[in-house]
Amino acid sequence: MALLSQSRRLRRTPFSEGVEAAGVKAYTIYNHMLLPTVFRSVTEDYHHLKSAVQIWDVACERQVELRGPDAARLMQMLTPRDLRTMKEGQCFYVPIVDETGGMLNDPVAVKLAEDRWWISIADSDLLYWVKGIANGWRLDVLVDEPDVSPLAVQGPKADELMARVFGDSVKDVRFFRYGLFEFQGRKLVVARSGYSKQGGYEIYVEGSDIGMPLWNALMEAGRDLDVHAGCPNLIERIESGLLSYGNDMTDDNTPHECGLGRFCDTHDAIGCIGRDALLRVAKEGPVQQIRPMAIEGAAVPGCDRWWPLLAGEKRVGRVSSAAWSPDFETNVAIAMVRMTHWDAGTALRVQTPDGMRDATVLEGFWN
Amino acid sequence: MALLSQSRRLRRTPFSEGVEAAGVKAYTIYNHMLLPTVFRSVTEDYHHLKSAVQIWDVACERQVELRGPDAARLMQMLTPRDLRTMKEGQCFYVPIVDETGGMLNDPVAVKLAEDRWWISIADSDLLYWVKGIANGWRLDVLVDEPDVSPLAVQGPKADELMARVFGDSVKDVRFFRYGLFEFQGRKLVVARSGYSKQGGYEIYVEGSDIGMPLWNALMEAGRDLDVHAGCPNLIERIESGLLSYGNDMTDDNTPHECGLGRFCDTHDAIGCIGRDALLRVAKEGPVQQIRPMAIEGAAVPGCDRWWPLLAGEKRVGRVSSAAWSPDFETNVAIAMVRMTHWDAGTALRVQTPDGMRDATVLEGFWN
Repeated sequence: MALLSQSRRLRRTPFSEGVEAAGVKAYTIYNHMLLPTVFRSVTEDYHHLKSAVQIWDVACERQVELRGPDAARLMQMLTPRDLRTMKEGQCFYVPIVDETGGMLNDPVAVKLAEDRWWISIADSDLLYWVKGIANGWRLDVLVDEPDVSPLAVQGPKADELMARVFGDSVKDVRFFRYGLFEFQGRKLVVARSGYSKQGGYEIYVEGSDIGMPLWNALMEAGRDLDVHAGCPNLIERIESGLLSYGNDMTDDNTPHECGLGRFCDTHDAIGCIGRDALLRVAKEGPVQQIRPMAIEGAAVPGCDRWWPLLAGEKRVGRVSSAAWSPDFETNVAIAMVRMTHWDAGTALRVQTPDGMRDATVLEGFWN
Repeated sequence: MALLSQSRRLRRTPFSEGVEAAGVKAYTIYNHMLLPTVFRSVTEDYHHLKSAVQIWDVACERQVELRGPDAARLMQMLTPRDLRTMKEGQCFYVPIVDETGGMLNDPVAVKLAEDRWWISIADSDLLYWVKGIANGWRLDVLVDEPDVSPLAVQGPKADELMARVFGDSVKDVRFFRYGLFEFQGRKLVVARSGYSKQGGYEIYVEGSDIGMPLWNALMEAGRDLDVHAGCPNLIERIESGLLSYGNDMTDDNTPHECGLGRFCDTHDAIGCIGRDALLRVAKEGPVQQIRPMAIEGAAVPGCDRWWPLLAGEKRVGRVSSAAWSPDFETNVAIAMVRMTHWDAGTALRVQTPDGMRDATVLEGFWN
């Protein structure tokens, strides 16, 4: 692994102190901020995530806040998902597209009120796009990045741990809903969501000053639950088919290529900037799409660049994420595959830095 | 130093192979891309930069390309610098501001033609702001990120090395001008510019395929000049007062606070989105501003967060970049200081992670 030179530009988070005390071993950079990637080892963290409960510093999921009379209109301009039925208390996974239908981000939108929204972003400065659109269209809305840092509690014992800190009613929060729960006199948005399929919550910590108190409270309350500092786990997220913006897709890709067509109500998303382009895509269908793939052989090396996917000598796609799965005893991978070769069962070859490997397109992800 | 987990999201560059072969020791992440920070050691790299010539992989200075009838109009909307006198063949350092006058980026604009511009960006997704503005204002312009990766040649022997590869006429390129020079049959923009004050060039390498051939040609041609792979050097850039977006300033700061008032022709920059806000600032002056500071004592630790600057017990600013300078035998630093305490000679205290240090506001930077 390479070394990372730290500087203020790669921002610390309200939880960095806790992360360091927990013995973080490596980071990635996400939205100009430190995101831990390893505590004990990727594999140890993986097993623990699936069996216990972890606290994740995901402050790097920065918020873009929309406030004002035109907030809802602006939110709909950003995404092809129809937001008319969305209520206060709900979170929606929303592809964000430009005028060509290219993905700019794949965040979660949180509706705080008709005139107040948060967009919990993946790794790109979505703030700039939203501010530019608001300015150019002269919308009556304020757009900025508030002092809100998500802290995730993930794993099968997340309900138990959260109940101890926030009270039993936190267990009643349904998937992709949120409630307001008090900590040290402050009401926090607590959503049942997170970047794993092991269950859990994301706490939108408003005010950096209560970051470490909350971190410590959770660690303390979960001692007998084997709580541990953790982070989004490469293996688990691939098994679960959780896409990563910048890895598995870029602004070259439409939501349909990313398998996110079900989040596109293109006919009804009136006002969406990319609507015209996506109506065309929705009609014709994409010519390439995200697929789960199993790669044969021993553990693959780190996937730090796209690996060409070949049928004979012909390039038919790319692998963008890959890791050895201890539970499924194969290399799990996410690939973008041309339609000529995307059917489940198709045998292909992957060109890894360590040499050519056999690989198979699968029907579905593992988790 | 922390470890960095690599992934496709942290993009490699057309020169990564050369960087690795040269024994890169650490990276930072800049515009979602790998930027080397250390080869031999920061100090060794520093001495070498000041005495010989280095090749820098600064592909992370991504380009935002504006093409079309409204390109020049859009470019002027982005910056308070008056671009009317700017000619083809020139590069301008341009603060980019939002509607409140807050800095979004501090790139170099390259005028390729009246209807074609590159913006060579610092670390933020300026592409998103520019695309949003172009869309919202219905401008007749295409905005995207082309396959252009800058390669810098920096140091006192840069002229000699460049002449060997591009011919003697490359020496005639004046500061912040560019010429078109051929390499392997392709015409490349070669500018006299770069993120050091040791002299040199930036080659805008158009087409990833010629990245390594050019890298190798420069390495080969400079063997007897002691050419070495290098990178922007923390010590040298602080001595030289070269600001770093995200470190020394953010979107909270106006250009005037950053000491960039001389690049703001606010009265004449008709169409600039932040003009109204900046007219106010230009009239009243900023209440805090960037200042060079010398910090006493032994070498300071790495400045990975803002260090509070104190007058007595009162906070009057922050140090954002700092390093031990072997040549000036002091800790050189960049700070943002309140006007009550920004006069040269003012004695302040800096709260570093290692304890309190005495520090002095200086008249000018070192180089």
